[in-house]
Amino acid sequence: MKVGVVGASGYAGGELLRLLAFHPQFEVNAITAHSNAGEQITSVHPQLQSYAGKKFSAFSPSDFLSCDLIFLALPHGESAKVIASLPTSAKIVDLGADFRLESAQQWSKYYGGDYAGAWTYGLADIEPFKTLISKSTKVANPGCYATSIALGTAPASSIADLSDVVVVAASGTTGAGRSAKINLIASEVAGSLTSYKFGGVHQHTPEIEQALTKVSGTAAKISFTPILAPMPRGILSTITAKLTKATSTEEVHALYSTYFTDSQFVTVLPIGVMPKTSALTGSNHVQIQVAVDSHTSRLVVSVAIDNLGKGAAAQAIQNANLMCGLDEAAGLRFDGLGV
Amino acid sequence: MKVGVVGASGYAGGELLRLLAFHPQFEVNAITAHSNAGEQITSVHPQLQSYAGKKFSAFSPSDFLSCDLIFLALPHGESAKVIASLPTSAKIVDLGADFRLESAQQWSKYYGGDYAGAWTYGLADIEPFKTLISKSTKVANPGCYATSIALGTAPASSIADLSDVVVVAASGTTGAGRSAKINLIASEVAGSLTSYKFGGVHQHTPEIEQALTKVSGTAAKISFTPILAPMPRGILSTITAKLTKATSTEEVHALYSTYFTDSQFVTVLPIGVMPKTSALTGSNHVQIQVAVDSHTSRLVVSVAIDNLGKGAAAQAIQNANLMCGLDEAAGLRFDGLGV
Amino acid sequence: MKVGVVGASGYAGGELLRLLAFHPQFEVNAITAHSNAGEQITSVHPQLQSYAGKKFSAFSPSDFLSCDLIFLALPHGESAKVIASLPTSAKIVDLGADFRLESAQQWSKYYGGDYAGAWTYGLADIEPFKTLISKSTKVANPGCYATSIALGTAPASSIADLSDVVVVAASGTTGAGRSAKINLIASEVAGSLTSYKFGGVHQHTPEIEQALTKVSGTAAKISFTPILAPMPRGILSTITAKLTKATSTEEVHALYSTYFTDSQFVTVLPIGVMPKTSALTGSNHVQIQVAVDSHTSRLVVSVAIDNLGKGAAAQAIQNANLMCGLDEAAGLRFDGLGV
Amino acid sequence: MKVGVVGASGYAGGELLRLLAFHPQFEVNAITAHSNAGEQITSVHPQLQSYAGKKFSAFSPSDFLSCDLIFLALPHGESAKVIASLPTSAKIVDLGADFRLESAQQWSKYYGGDYAGAWTYGLADIEPFKTLISKSTKVANPGCYATSIALGTAPASSIADLSDVVVVAASGTTGAGRSAKINLIASEVAGSLTSYKFGGVHQHTPEIEQALTKVSGTAAKISFTPILAPMPRGILSTITAKLTKATSTEEVHALYSTYFTDSQFVTVLPIGVMPKTSALTGSNHVQIQVAVDSHTSRLVVSVAIDNLGKGAAAQAIQNANLMCGLDEAAGLRFDGLGV
Repeated sequence: MKVGVVGASGYAGGELLRLLAFHPQFEVNAITAHSNAGEQITSVHPQLQSYAGKKFSAFSPSDFLSCDLIFLALPHGESAKVIASLPTSAKIVDLGADFRLESAQQWSKYYGGDYAGAWTYGLADIEPFKTLISKSTKVANPGCYATSIALGTAPASSIADLSDVVVVAASGTTGAGRSAKINLIASEVAGSLTSYKFGGVHQHTPEIEQALTKVSGTAAKISFTPILAPMPRGILSTITAKLTKATSTEEVHALYSTYFTDSQFVTVLPIGVMPKTSALTGSNHVQIQVAVDSHTSRLVVSVAIDNLGKGAAAQAIQNANLMCGLDEAAGLRFDGLGV
Repeated sequence: MKVGVVGASGYAGGELLRLLAFHPQFEVNAITAHSNAGEQITSVHPQLQSYAGKKFSAFSPSDFLSCDLIFLALPHGESAKVIASLPTSAKIVDLGADFRLESAQQWSKYYGGDYAGAWTYGLADIEPFKTLISKSTKVANPGCYATSIALGTAPASSIADLSDVVVVAASGTTGAGRSAKINLIASEVAGSLTSYKFGGVHQHTPEIEQALTKVSGTAAKISFTPILAPMPRGILSTITAKLTKATSTEEVHALYSTYFTDSQFVTVLPIGVMPKTSALTGSNHVQIQVAVDSHTSRLVVSVAIDNLGKGAAAQAIQNANLMCGLDEAAGLRFDGLGV
Repeated sequence: MKVGVVGASGYAGGELLRLLAFHPQFEVNAITAHSNAGEQITSVHPQLQSYAGKKFSAFSPSDFLSCDLIFLALPHGESAKVIASLPTSAKIVDLGADFRLESAQQWSKYYGGDYAGAWTYGLADIEPFKTLISKSTKVANPGCYATSIALGTAPASSIADLSDVVVVAASGTTGAGRSAKINLIASEVAGSLTSYKFGGVHQHTPEIEQALTKVSGTAAKISFTPILAPMPRGILSTITAKLTKATSTEEVHALYSTYFTDSQFVTVLPIGVMPKTSALTGSNHVQIQVAVDSHTSRLVVSVAIDNLGKGAAAQAIQNANLMCGLDEAAGLRFDGLGV
Repeated sequence: MKVGVVGASGYAGGELLRLLAFHPQFEVNAITAHSNAGEQITSVHPQLQSYAGKKFSAFSPSDFLSCDLIFLALPHGESAKVIASLPTSAKIVDLGADFRLESAQQWSKYYGGDYAGAWTYGLADIEPFKTLISKSTKVANPGCYATSIALGTAPASSIADLSDVVVVAASGTTGAGRSAKINLIASEVAGSLTSYKFGGVHQHTPEIEQALTKVSGTAAKISFTPILAPMPRGILSTITAKLTKATSTEEVHALYSTYFTDSQFVTVLPIGVMPKTSALTGSNHVQIQVAVDSHTSRLVVSVAIDNLGKGAAAQAIQNANLMCGLDEAAGLRFDGLGV
C-alpha cells in the first residue's frame, strides 16, 4: 500500500517515518513538511538513515493522488484545511486534534476556531473503538495524555466514581513539540519538574471525558494536571477516583486484567510491579498497575506509555492496520527500549 | 555555638554540612557516620572542600558533650536509640521520622518497631509550629514530601474538603538515599518516570495528616502517590481537593498570599507562573501556585521545593535557628541555583 | 535457526534479546542468566514484552545442544570457561573480551588470569574483518569503545600518524553494566561528568591497537581516556592524530566516504554535520565526521554509536548474520530512536 | 561598595546576581538587560528570590555613575561599545571576550569586527595573573573552557610539550547561553552527546594559548574539541600532551600540588580520585587530577569546573575582590552542590 505523511518534520512525524520504514505492507511515497520543505529528511531527523537522500516536499495534493493511506501530523486546525484536497478514496489517520471531539462547544472552549466535525476516535486497544475503527476510513488518533488516561480509567467504571477522576500526568519534552522556545531549552528543563496548563484547562480533557463517557455509559469528569518532566519521551499518568464499592487490589487487578485480555499491547503488570516509562520507549505498548488505597477508599492507577509511540505514531499505525484489514500488530511487534 | 552532626554520610547529612559551613553562628565540631567512619569527608562528599582533611568519626557520646546543638540524620529507628546518650542540655533537631508522629498506632502501621514518642513538629514556616519550635529544645524535622504537601494544603482548610485530598508528588533520586540499589542506578532512572510505595502506603502520609489536622482543626485525609523522577533533587507536589465553597483563582491566590505573609521562605508566585524545582535547588525556599479548576470544582495547588534543602537540611537549620533564638534566616539567605 | 543466549540478564544481554525478537531467521530457545536464574525475564528487563512468561534458566550445557548459534554475554573470564561445554557444531559470538586479543601478554597486562586464545575479531563493517568473519564459526565481538574508535581511525592510516593517536570518549552509563554500585546511582551520575580508568589503562586499548595495526600495517598506539556521561546509552569518541601529509577537510571527508562505501551501517555525515549519539540509539548504525585542524596540523574525527547497539548486541547479530551466510543486515534494518 | 551589572538576563548574569546577593561588601544597585528591560528579574531568573520585586533596567549610563564596580555580561562585541559611557573611576570586570586577546589578528580570526584592545587577563588563581589583577582596574574574565584548560595545563610546562596539546572538553548546556534554538531544546539534548565548533575553530583557543605562552615562556598550541553534554552546568576537560622527560604519576602529582599551593580554589585530588563536575556546581572551586600514561609517554590531565561558577560569575567576583583589595575569597566561601 502506498502511504503519505503530511507534516513529517515534527517529533510525531519523525517517529511515524521511523516506524513506517519497518512496516511490512506500507510503503512511504509522499513526505511533506511546511517550514522544512526542500530539506533533507536526515537534516531534521538525523536518525532516519532509511530515508537518506530523500527530501521533504512542500504539500501538494497531486503527490497524494496515488496514496491508499495518509497520515496527518499537523498542528491543530491544519488537518481540517488540507482534508478537502486529499483523494476521497484514501484512508486517513489524523494525529492532530481536529476531528477528535464530537461537541462543537467543547472544540470551541478548548481549541477555538472553526469546528470540523468528528471522526471515529482511534483508541485502538479497547471497544467500542476498535470495532468502529476497523469499519472506518477516517480516524482521529487520540492525544498522548488522552491515550494513557482513557486506557487507565476505562476498566474502572463499575467500581469507581468516574464523575470525579483526578489525574496528574507527567510527559517528556517531545510532547511539547520540536519548537525553539526558551522554556523548552535543555538548561531550563534539565533536572527540573514544572506543571503547565494548570487549573483544569488542558485540551485533552474533553476527549478523555468523551471516551470514558462512551465506554462507561455515565458522564465522566476529569481534573487533569500535566507536568513537564526532564526526559525526552514517556508519559506517566497517575489516576485516582473514589471507589463506589468495597473491593481489594486483587479484585481490581483481576478486573483490569480481564478487561485487557484481548488488548495485546496493554500489559497489566503483576501486583506490586510498577509501570516505568523507559520500558515503553519507541513501542506501541502500555503498562498499567492498580491498587486500592484502603486508607482513603480510592482506586489508584498508574499508566506508562511512550508519548511518541503509543501516544502518537505507533497507535496511528495500529489504527491504519485496523482500517486496512491487516493484523493490528503489523509493523508494531517490537519491544520498548528499556534503557 | 558548637554543633554536632550524627549520620553525616547520607545526602541529607552532606547537605547539612554544606549549609552549616555557611552559618554565621554555628561551628561544626563533631561529625559522625556509621559505615563511613574513618573516611575522609571529601571521599564521600567530594563537594565539601570546606571540610578538606577532616574525617567522619564513629559515633561516640563523648564527642558530643560540648555540643550546644545536635542534628541527627539517621535512618528511622536509629535516632531514638542514640538520644539517651546525648547531653540533655543540647538542643536536638532530628531529620529522621522517629519523633514526628503523635500516634503510637500510626507509627506502628507505617514504620513498625518501638514507638519513641513525639517531639515538636518542625514545619517551621507556619503556625502553630513556628511558635512551638521557638520554645522547644527537641524538634522533629518534617519529611521532604510532608513539607511540600503540608505547606501547599494548610491554607486551604476554609475552602476545600481536607478529608479527601489527592496528592501526586514526584521526587528527585536523592530522596531515595545514597544507597547502592539496582533500581536507583542511573541506567534504570535516566529518562524514566516510575511510581513507588503505590496505593496510599507512603510513610509520610500520617505526618501530613497530623499536621493538617492540627492546622485546620478538622480531620485531614490524604491519598498520596509518590513518583521517582529522573533528576537528583527537587519535589514537585500536585495537590487537589474538592472546593467547599464557590471561589475563584484570584480569591484563592489572595488567601494563600495572606496566609504566607510572614513566611519569608514561601513564595506564592504571580498567577500563571508555575513553581519549578530547579529554582529552589540548594535553598530553603518554597514556591507555590494555586488555581480553581471550575470544570471540576476543585482546588489545584502546585508546590516545589528542594528535597535536600527545604525538605531536609535547610529546614533543619531554620528549626535550629528558631530553637536558639536566632534570626530564622541565619545562614539560609541564599537563592536556589536556578539552572 | 535455533539460538541460545548465555548471560542474558545484563544490559547487553537484554538488548540482544530485544533485537533477536525482530530477527527473521533466528529463534531464541535458550536463555540463561547466573544470578537471575528462575526469574521472569520481564522482571529484569521490563521492556521485553515479547518474552512475557519466559524465565531465565541456570546455565546447563544440555539446553544448548540443539542451538545452531550461541551468543555469550558474560563478564570477562567467564566465556572461556563455558566454551568447552557448548556443542562444537554451534556458531558462537562472544560479546565479552575473552577471545579478542592475539597477545597473551596484552591479555595478562589488561585483564589478568588465564589467556584463552583469540577468535576472529568481529569488527563487522570493515575489511579484513568482514571477510574473515564470514568464514568463521567463532567470533569475538569488539568492545563498545573499541568499535567506535577503530572505525573512526582505520581510514586515516595513509594521512595521519597512528603511532600517537589521542582519544577521549564518553559513554552512557549502561556501559558500566547493570550493577548496584554507589558511583553508578542516578544521584551521583545525574548532571555530572567524570573520567575513569584514567591514565591510559582502559582494557579496550590493546584491541583497538591490534585492529588498527592489522588494518594499517603499521604499529598503532592509542592514548585513551574514557568518561562516564549522564545518559543511559551512547558513545561519542573524539579522535585526533598528527597529519602526516598536507590535506584538507574535503579530501579527508572524501577519503572516509570512499573507505566506508560498502559499509551500509557507517555514515560519514555531510561536512559540518556532527554525529549525535541519540540518533543511533537502539541501532546498528555509526555516524562519523572528520575535519582537518589546520591550526595544529591534526586530523580530528568524531564518532557516535549506541554502546549497546552497534557497540554490543547489534554488531553481534551482524556478525552472526555474516557467519551464517545471511544478509548482514537481517534483523538490523531499523533506524535509531533520534529522541 | 556599589555594584552594577550590565547584561544580567543571561545565565552568567543570573549567576552573578545570585552570588552577589551573598557578598559581604558588594551591594548591587544597577541591573540592566537589553531585551528583558522592564521585566521582573524573577520572571527571567525565578530562583532570584533575593531580588523579588526588582526589575531589569534598560542600559543607561547615568544609572552607573555611583557604581564603584561594574560587571559586564554581554555578548562579544557589546562590552567594547558600552565602556566609553561608564564612569572612568569604576573598576570593571568584563565576562565577555572583548578584552581578552592581546593580538588584533587573533581577534579578527576568531571573532571578527573591531578589535578593542586587551585588559589584564583574569585567570585569578595563578601567577602572573593574580598579581596583575590586584593592580588593575579593568579585567577581562577568562572564558569557561579557557579557565579549565589553562589551569589544567599551566603547571606542565616543564615536563610536557605545550606546542602540541590536545584537549577534548565537554560543557553543560548553559555554556550555550539562554537562547531559543532548536539544537538546544531538551528533546534534542537529552541523553545525547554531540560535538560542535569542530576542527580547531573554537574561539577560546587563542586566549588559552596566550595564557599558556605567558605562563610557560614558550609558544603553546592547542587542538581543542568542544562537546555539548546533557547536563545544565559543568565542564570536564581532558588534556593530554607528550611528556618531554621521563616522569611518574607521583612526580607530576607533586608538581601540580606544589604549583597550586597558594591557590585556595584549586584542588589537586588525591591520586586515583577523579574530578566530577557536580562537585563544583555553583562554586568557585576547581578539581584537577593528573596521570602519566606510560604506554604512550603522555601526560593526561582531567579538570572539572562549573562553567557558570568558576568559569564565569564566581571567577569574576574573585577578580573583583582582588581588584578591590579584598580577600579574594570574600563572598565565595561555599562548597559546590555535590548532587
